[in-house]
Amino acid sequence: MSDPLSIAVVGGTGNEGRGLALRFAAAGSRVIIGSRDAARAVETAERLAHGQPHPGISGLSNRDAIAAADVVVLAIPFGHVETTLVAERDAFTPGTLVIDVTVPVVFEMGKPRFVEPVDGSAAELVRRLLPAEVAVACAFKTLPAALLEDVDIPLACDDFVCGDSKETRERAMALVGSIPTLRPVDAGPLDAARILERMTLLAIGLNKRYKRHGARFHVVGIGN
Amino acid sequence: MSDPLSIAVVGGTGNEGRGLALRFAAAGSRVIIGSRDAARAVETAERLAHGQPHPGISGLSNRDAIAAADVVVLAIPFGHVETTLVAERDAFTPGTLVIDVTVPVVFEMGKPRFVEPVDGSAAELVRRLLPAEVAVACAFKTLPAALLEDVDIPLACDDFVCGDSKETRERAMALVGSIPTLRPVDAGPLDAARILERMTLLAIGLNKRYKRHGARFHVVGIGN
Repeated sequence: MSDPLSIAVVGGTGNEGRGLALRFAAAGSRVIIGSRDAARAVETAERLAHGQPHPGISGLSNRDAIAAADVVVLAIPFGHVETTLVAERDAFTPGTLVIDVTVPVVFEMGKPRFVEPVDGSAAELVRRLLPAEVAVACAFKTLPAALLEDVDIPLACDDFVCGDSKETRERAMALVGSIPTLRPVDAGPLDAARILERMTLLAIGLNKRYKRHGARFHVVGIGN
Repeated sequence: MSDPLSIAVVGGTGNEGRGLALRFAAAGSRVIIGSRDAARAVETAERLAHGQPHPGISGLSNRDAIAAADVVVLAIPFGHVETTLVAERDAFTPGTLVIDVTVPVVFEMGKPRFVEPVDGSAAELVRRLLPAEVAVACAFKTLPAALLEDVDIPLACDDFVCGDSKETRERAMALVGSIPTLRPVDAGPLDAARILERMTLLAIGLNKRYKRHGARFHVVGIGN
């Protein structure tokens, strides 16, 4: 058996990040919570690791987490993407798979609004800011954060994956597929993030109108 | 029992229009195929009406179809929207429900490309071009045309509806819900079409990558 994948969740102290960390750990990956404040990362990791199986969850500064991981999941607020990646750019090891989970949606008086990035999507912004030797995919964008943290609830839905190459997508889809009841769906090249990031806004609106917190998507007609 | 709803399908000679006409007729509505060429509309209607129950399917010019119907479904190519609506604007009766099905996607050497309308979406363009006394909704945008025409295949998916008021959405959702196995989903105000029209592009890409022709969406977590 190969070593478990090590996954850094940058922004792992937020609710989306915590939820993903728990799902990855439950699927057998080694998870490193990253935070600007290493002490906060350690504290979150200890709280999340409670009851998790080995190899579990640890905490480091964003920089150390990025340098140590095979996969870096960006789960920071969209507004922090540029400053974080400019600051940590040289910490990424060539060959690292970066999975962008950020969504360019801001809340104004409780109302969500899509803020179109100049690059077309957050994923394309991430691609531009990182070295070419790092692979960039987009995944987990339409999953409800509220559901991720409760690992006992099956996700029972699809997750759309797009990426800068077929190989990148395959790596990201394998990671998505390691989470039980989550089916990876190949959404194509990275610019498909322009669609997926808007679908997050749709899901937020559906949760509001249907008074739920777990609206998510399933594609009918492409297989099982 | 009330009179059956009369539905004009403008652009009803195209494949999306024909499919919707068949589904509406099967659901008990009176369908009028509209075309720039009335003779072609009659011919398509006769072909489609074969084997359909009364009140069935008839054909008229776009203008006469629009004037005669309770609901006008716009199933024309996106590039024809502006000229058609400018020409037929005064044929719309106040209170008519217009359902925009057009999608701003063009194919270039077989590759689909989203062409962002200046109004943000095709639905918002339609809203701008029509009198205020006409209600405008967007529906049927993400359904695969290839599947619609084969009425024996259950759609077994969701259809996202957005509209210029809650009442408009409710009218459109009732129409969507009249088609068996199709669940209407309230996607909110008309500008949600910016998301839905891009989801058509996603569905086209999924069909291509998964070698299918019926990729469509279902929302998990908002009820039955």
